[in-house]
Amino acid sequence: MKAEIINIGTEILLGHIVNTNSAYLSRKLAEVGIDIYYHTTVGDNLLRLYAAIQRALGRSDIVITTGGLGPTVDDITLKTIARVLDKKLIYKDQIWQRIEDHFKKRHIKTPKNNLRQAYIPQGSRWLKNGVGTAPGIIAKKNKKILIALPGPPLELIPMVERDMVTDLKKFTHKKSKVIKSKVLKTTGLAESQVHPKIKKFLHMSGNTTAGIYAHPAQIDIKITTKAKNEKETKKNISAVEKQIRKRLGDLIFGCDDETLEAVVAGLLIKNNKTIAIAESCTGGLLSNRLTDIPGSSNYLMHSIIAYSNKSKTQLLGVPEEIIKKYGAVSRQTAKLMAKNVKELANVDIGLSITGIAGPSGETKQKPVGLVYIAVVTKNKIICKEFHFSGERKLIKFRSSQAALDMLRRHLLHG
Amino acid sequence: MKAEIINIGTEILLGHIVNTNSAYLSRKLAEVGIDIYYHTTVGDNLLRLYAAIQRALGRSDIVITTGGLGPTVDDITLKTIARVLDKKLIYKDQIWQRIEDHFKKRHIKTPKNNLRQAYIPQGSRWLKNGVGTAPGIIAKKNKKILIALPGPPLELIPMVERDMVTDLKKFTHKKSKVIKSKVLKTTGLAESQVHPKIKKFLHMSGNTTAGIYAHPAQIDIKITTKAKNEKETKKNISAVEKQIRKRLGDLIFGCDDETLEAVVAGLLIKNNKTIAIAESCTGGLLSNRLTDIPGSSNYLMHSIIAYSNKSKTQLLGVPEEIIKKYGAVSRQTAKLMAKNVKELANVDIGLSITGIAGPSGETKQKPVGLVYIAVVTKNKIICKEFHFSGERKLIKFRSSQAALDMLRRHLLHG
Repeated sequence: MKAEIINIGTEILLGHIVNTNSAYLSRKLAEVGIDIYYHTTVGDNLLRLYAAIQRALGRSDIVITTGGLGPTVDDITLKTIARVLDKKLIYKDQIWQRIEDHFKKRHIKTPKNNLRQAYIPQGSRWLKNGVGTAPGIIAKKNKKILIALPGPPLELIPMVERDMVTDLKKFTHKKSKVIKSKVLKTTGLAESQVHPKIKKFLHMSGNTTAGIYAHPAQIDIKITTKAKNEKETKKNISAVEKQIRKRLGDLIFGCDDETLEAVVAGLLIKNNKTIAIAESCTGGLLSNRLTDIPGSSNYLMHSIIAYSNKSKTQLLGVPEEIIKKYGAVSRQTAKLMAKNVKELANVDIGLSITGIAGPSGETKQKPVGLVYIAVVTKNKIICKEFHFSGERKLIKFRSSQAALDMLRRHLLHG
Repeated sequence: MKAEIINIGTEILLGHIVNTNSAYLSRKLAEVGIDIYYHTTVGDNLLRLYAAIQRALGRSDIVITTGGLGPTVDDITLKTIARVLDKKLIYKDQIWQRIEDHFKKRHIKTPKNNLRQAYIPQGSRWLKNGVGTAPGIIAKKNKKILIALPGPPLELIPMVERDMVTDLKKFTHKKSKVIKSKVLKTTGLAESQVHPKIKKFLHMSGNTTAGIYAHPAQIDIKITTKAKNEKETKKNISAVEKQIRKRLGDLIFGCDDETLEAVVAGLLIKNNKTIAIAESCTGGLLSNRLTDIPGSSNYLMHSIIAYSNKSKTQLLGVPEEIIKKYGAVSRQTAKLMAKNVKELANVDIGLSITGIAGPSGETKQKPVGLVYIAVVTKNKIICKEFHFSGERKLIKFRSSQAALDMLRRHLLHG
């Protein structure tokens, strides 16, 4: 079973917005075993849209359009679909009621324009829009399915999750195959270091394969499989995952939507540990990431962003002589920052980051990207030196990522 | 002059990556007066790609492909283009030298596979890739132009900026019109509040128009114009901009790529002011945003993220009785946090944020989203109460945005 996606909107062709709907819909369709051969974007132009839909219906079983369902005259999707189906647009009172309710709730008088949205091609079914006013449409033409969805992802996604996926499952052949993926996330190694370890899984014959996706300070391994049902996909993925985990061990910090900060937050709560942070070059990024996780007040007592040398002395008690002798960016300063912030807060773990994020501030001995990170507990002081590349924000991010990973390893292995 | 874009890659059709190249290329083409009528994505399949290129050459003057230039057998773009042009692929020693240099620099033996990348369709011109190994290609077929660019944006963007735009300017007709845009950025009002103020510019007849784009805690107004040359576009945009600025005044904080934090950083440096920050619910986000700007050590002395009540007392000297009586999230606590962090750091400005980011922590009197922000200087204490909506990260972001805007207004007007 083949599908294709047609995105409608001159603003996409002008590059004013990035089309994320295609990627989202493609993943959803793959998950129910539907293949996608084409994505097409056309502007708000009736003739070109008409031709695009006709061509798509000629070569695919399912055609999904996004966009062009708004209340203005530029919005021509349903008018065009009606022509393709050779049907009239007819008024649906139920849709109009929903539109009026939408505005009533917001204490706004329903604009006259929105009446257009209550007209749909005769014989088609409409899908509720829980966020905006434009309904979605499902129509049939000679056994082919034509679906029209609203353009804004905030409106499209709930409609797909609630209605479209269920509907499409009915249409797909029993013998069509399901595609599923699982992402294993690592940090701390470069792509060229991960590659040899899992090379043999990258181009396997058969229906299961793995790919490497490099992000800043994070390498993902995506296992993808195609099988006759969901149970089979799970079995296939699990077999390869086991092999990859054997080779990568604790380099893998999480799966799919898990973030490194969420994993660390989970370990802090599980181990019942509290923490205080002293940041310099990261300027609050590490604390910000950890406090993105709900419930962070259970483990984070406070952070001190000692951005100036003076504040490292005044707030963190790093002696002036130490900073003079070794520098603010040094192993010695990092260790004292972590130790003192821990004692000040009376917590289990003190963590510090000091480095040069650039572009200015480097010396011959201390280049941009030099970063020291220290983790201090009751019995242990760990301090590591890093040399990060990239521009300022990237160095900040890599530093926060390395700090979170040091913390994770400490919490895992003590 | 019309162009269209063909993105090549099964990973796009599977939704594994979001296609950002189309939006980027579309903006670049619009800037030199080239219209785009279609974006198409096809997989790594020779027949479908061949058909897509043929169709595109039939209806457009310029066809740009992205992707499929890698060293593996899946990469079929040049093979397909050679067929479309009815030419052979021929070996270019200059390209091969560059590929060998690329690996030599990285102390890696050149993989044999990469030899494929030194073969290009006879008669075509190649474009240097400053980042990866795949060259770009420019070819002609009956006055039509066919351009092949690499898929990874990091490789594509420099090639477009350096070579393609210059080349295309030569091909475009003198009478073709140039499209330019300028974005004016505001914060502090909702879309529905900005709308009535600038309504008359939203659907102007003629070649200049404005649109409203809503982002979290930021409403952008984009002025777009089409004119016969760049000078004219500037004149058109400037005329509308003046009118919009009259209506929105200092609600506009910046233009185009300017961020609110960069604008505030600029004002701090211009006014020669120093600052210290006390954050609670934002957990370091505000400090992180301000330190994203190079040179932030010139104005930021330190930040204290007093995440617990204890740290508000211990580090910021907010008396326990005040927290007991009014709460950690209160006007009184916010003011004292800002005043004390200022005095502790001996700076010109103290800024504080305290609030409930959720999802837990709310009471009947104090709902999730309640945030107090205070700015304290030698002569002035300003404290504002906010009620933000959205989930945790959004409330953090809205809070940091409001704090930056209060700071901006203070620095502008004293």
